[in-house]
Parts: sequence; C-alpha cells; structure tokens
Amino acid sequence: MKDVARRLADRLVVAPGERARLSRRDPRATPFLDDKSRAEAAIDALVQRLDDWQLRLHAEARQSLLVVIQGMDASGKDGVIRRVMGGFDPAGCHVHSFKAPTALELAHDPLWRLHARTPAAGEVAIWNRSHYEDVLIVRVRDLVPRAVWSRRYRHFVEFERLLVESGTRVLKLCLHLSREEQRERLLARLEEPDKRWKFREGDLDERARWDDYQTAYEDALTRTSSEHAPWYVIPADRKWYRDWAVATLLVHTLAEMRPRIPEPVLDLARLERRLRRER
Amino acid sequence: MKDVARRLADRLVVAPGERARLSRRDPRATPFLDDKSRAEAAIDALVQRLDDWQLRLHAEARQSLLVVIQGMDASGKDGVIRRVMGGFDPAGCHVHSFKAPTALELAHDPLWRLHARTPAAGEVAIWNRSHYEDVLIVRVRDLVPRAVWSRRYRHFVEFERLLVESGTRVLKLCLHLSREEQRERLLARLEEPDKRWKFREGDLDERARWDDYQTAYEDALTRTSSEHAPWYVIPADRKWYRDWAVATLLVHTLAEMRPRIPEPVLDLARLERRLRRER
Repeated sequence: MKDVARRLADRLVVAPGERARLSRRDPRATPFLDDKSRAEAAIDALVQRLDDWQLRLHAEARQSLLVVIQGMDASGKDGVIRRVMGGFDPAGCHVHSFKAPTALELAHDPLWRLHARTPAAGEVAIWNRSHYEDVLIVRVRDLVPRAVWSRRYRHFVEFERLLVESGTRVLKLCLHLSREEQRERLLARLEEPDKRWKFREGDLDERARWDDYQTAYEDALTRTSSEHAPWYVIPADRKWYRDWAVATLLVHTLAEMRPRIPEPVLDLARLERRLRRER
Repeated sequence: MKDVARRLADRLVVAPGERARLSRRDPRATPFLDDKSRAEAAIDALVQRLDDWQLRLHAEARQSLLVVIQGMDASGKDGVIRRVMGGFDPAGCHVHSFKAPTALELAHDPLWRLHARTPAAGEVAIWNRSHYEDVLIVRVRDLVPRAVWSRRYRHFVEFERLLVESGTRVLKLCLHLSREEQRERLLARLEEPDKRWKFREGDLDERARWDDYQTAYEDALTRTSSEHAPWYVIPADRKWYRDWAVATLLVHTLAEMRPRIPEPVLDLARLERRLRRER
C-alpha cells in the first residue's frame, strides 16, 4: 500500500522545473488500479483512516494540512470533498469554497482573503478553488493586465513557502477532466432535477474557452509546482479513480507528516489519587 | 418517527418562561428509546439523512442552521460532533470550537467573535461552546462583575432573534451529565494513552465548582430559552442516548425548515440544444 502510494505520487506529480503538458496526461487513465469495485472498497478503507490521522494531528497541535483543489467545472471538486474529506472529523476540518471575490476582497491583494482561511496548528483546511483562480479565470477573461497576473506565480510560490516553513503541509490537487466528459456531466446536470439548480448559463461560456483554460492551467502548474508544494494532476474522468487517487495521496501525506500524540507532562498518579479520593 | 421526534422535543425543551430545574432532569434518563443497539441503528439511519437535507439547504440558499452545543467537561461535545455532525457534507458544515478568548477578542463585546462565525445562507454551523461561556465560566470564576454578566442574557436572546429573523434557525443543546459520570470519564481519560493528552489539571479545578456551574447553567437556560431559540437539555450519561437524541432533534429541525431545491429559471431546452449542437 505504502509503496503504491509513493509510486502513485511519483506518477501524478508535476516535477518542479518541468513543463506540465496536460495534453500528454490522459484524464481517463487509471494507473495502479483499474477495477472500479476494488477502488470503492479501497476508498472506504482509506477514508476510515483519516479520522485517526486527524486525531494525532490535533493532539500533537504542531503541524497542519492545507489541501488546495482546482479543476474545470464538473471536474468533481464538490464530489471528492464529499466522498473523501467526509472522513475527517468535521471539528478539525474546515472547507472553504472561494467564489468570485467581493468588493472588499478585491480591494486587497489576492492572498488576503485566503490567508485568513489557512489551517491552525492541528487542523486541516480544504480549499475548493483558491488563489489560483487569479491566474486562471482572471487571465482567461482579461480581468487584470498581463503585467499584474504574470507576477502572481511568484507570489503564490513564496506564500506557500511561508506556510510550509511555518508548519503547514500544502497538498495541491488539479482534477484533470476531458472536454468530452465535461459535456456529458453538464448534460446530466440539465437532465437531473436534483442537479439542475447547480447549472448556470455562464458554465457554457467558460466551456467555450476550453483551450485558453488548458493553457492557463498548464502555465500555472508549471510555474508553481515547487519542491515545498508540488502539484498533482489527478485523472478525473472516472469518479472512482479520482476519489481513490485523492484518498491515497491524502493518507500518504498524513503518514509522511507523522503526527504523534504527545506524552502528557502531568503527574498522572497524583491526578488519579485526587479524583479517587474525592469522597 | 416524526411523532417520536416531536414528543422528544417537547420532553427535552426548556419551556420559555419556566425555570430549567436541572436537578429534576435525570442525566441517565432515556425517554422514548432505552435499547442501545436499536439506538445505534437509528443513529446510523438519521446521520445518513443529514447529507440529503443539507443538499436541499444549500440548493435553496435562503435559510441556515446554527447548532449551539454546551455542556460540562467530558459531557460529550466533541463526541456528538464527530458521530452525528460527521453526517453533513463538510463543504457546507463549519464547526467552530470557542476556546478562552484572545486579547483582541476580549477587547470587543462578547458576541463579536461569534458573529463572524454565523452560518451563511445555505450552510450549517456548529458551535462547540459559545457566547454562553460568558455567563458560565465567566460568572463562576468572577471574571467580570455581576453587573456586567447579568446583562448578557438579554444581549444573547436579542442576538439570537436577529439571527432567527434573518433566516437562521438556532438549535441550542445542553448536554446534561451527572457528577458521577464525569468522574468515570475523567478517570478513563487518565488511563487511556490515546486520551491522556486531552487532560488538563484545570479540569479538576472546574469540577470542584460543580454546584456553582449547575446554578449558572440553570440561570442561563431559564433566562435564554426563548420562543425563537429554545434550549434542549439532552440526558448525556449514556453516549448512545445522547447521540440518538441529538440526531433526532437535528433531523426534526431540518424537516421543519423544509428547504426546497429551487426550480431553475433557465431555458433548459435551449441550453441542452447548445450543448448537443456543439460539434
């Protein structure tokens, strides 16, 4: 298991300094596990272990974990959070979904609203979309000049260095969906009464700029995959594979962090006497 | 089921305008369900329904739910959050554990830090401890003069009115533990290596003021159980009963809120044509 996790991480990582080349990565690929029912069982087992890792993280209270999730519409950001992150104790796992910024947020630097949502020691934070929107939709839609957004890659790398060197592990996941699969999922959204409310006409406008987004993603991944906070590209056309890969990387990351329950500095025998003697 | 939930709510509520009288409420009581294994199965079933209610709440995006949890040390606040609130999709359920206030927080009114953590429309927030600490530990330990804390009951009732009249349902739960059961649980904490880290010497100092806390709780429940935000006192000596009662009240509350998935205002046929025609 450990060995598969390490090899999976090696396969999915965007090696720092190399070009991401999304077109050479198959969104339908299923490296190391190509059986849906085995994947489902494995996901259940992995998800059940999250709670225990989180207890250690919380008891240790020295490190924290930040998971950044990016991906095109319908790539499964909400789905993976529900299925995989649902394994965490909600008391110590905060999910933040970053929408279009408010006027107040726009009046600050693009990391301002994010910084306020970084995890405290002992906690896990999940970011559904993130600062990276400021070099994705902002770039594709020309919301600020190139001179502005092109400087942000460095800001992001250095911001993440600050977090990592202050005790926060940063796991960046890009859910990689094919254009065809997005079409199927958007159609499904239109057809299912329980999903229709999620649909916005703007989704189709973004979809029409598919190639621009791929270029923007490729540049972002290439320029911000660092030794301290590398990107992983998750094949996302098959939901079960996407969930298995994310759960595997998550457990692998927590195991690498090795949080430990601390030894108490209490005089246990004395406390026990105090309680037992009470009456 | 619905009927049991309504009768349970009637049994556990602190009727607005009446005295709470904790001493007449048995922490070991198990009204409406006194079989542990039936309770466990019922909890599983109830917890599984939370996700669906939350989807409706999120899709509707008009109402929100705030759950306030208070109780003595070891009464099971963390436990009930893990077991019951774990059923929510973490993306739409934020848990906030309020610890001793920081210097900055103390420089504001006692509702300042809480107000920033109220749930947005469509979301659920769980408060592990809350503004009520400002009339509990603050009163018992004489941290501010009586003239200050005694005015807070009204502040709290009116703050909750603001929330309720702005679309937030407020469910206030007091986990009611016996002094004997607290002793057993604190001893267990000392004995289990995985729980010891949670133990603080101060826990025994608070325990030594048990009667003062009971009085402070009774006054708080009596003076702040309102028509718009009543208190429920949950018998908490048996963990399975506590979890079942909380899960039942939670599902009952969501059912009363009746969140509905909205009908889209989209021209579905035209969007579907646009997607199908694409190429």
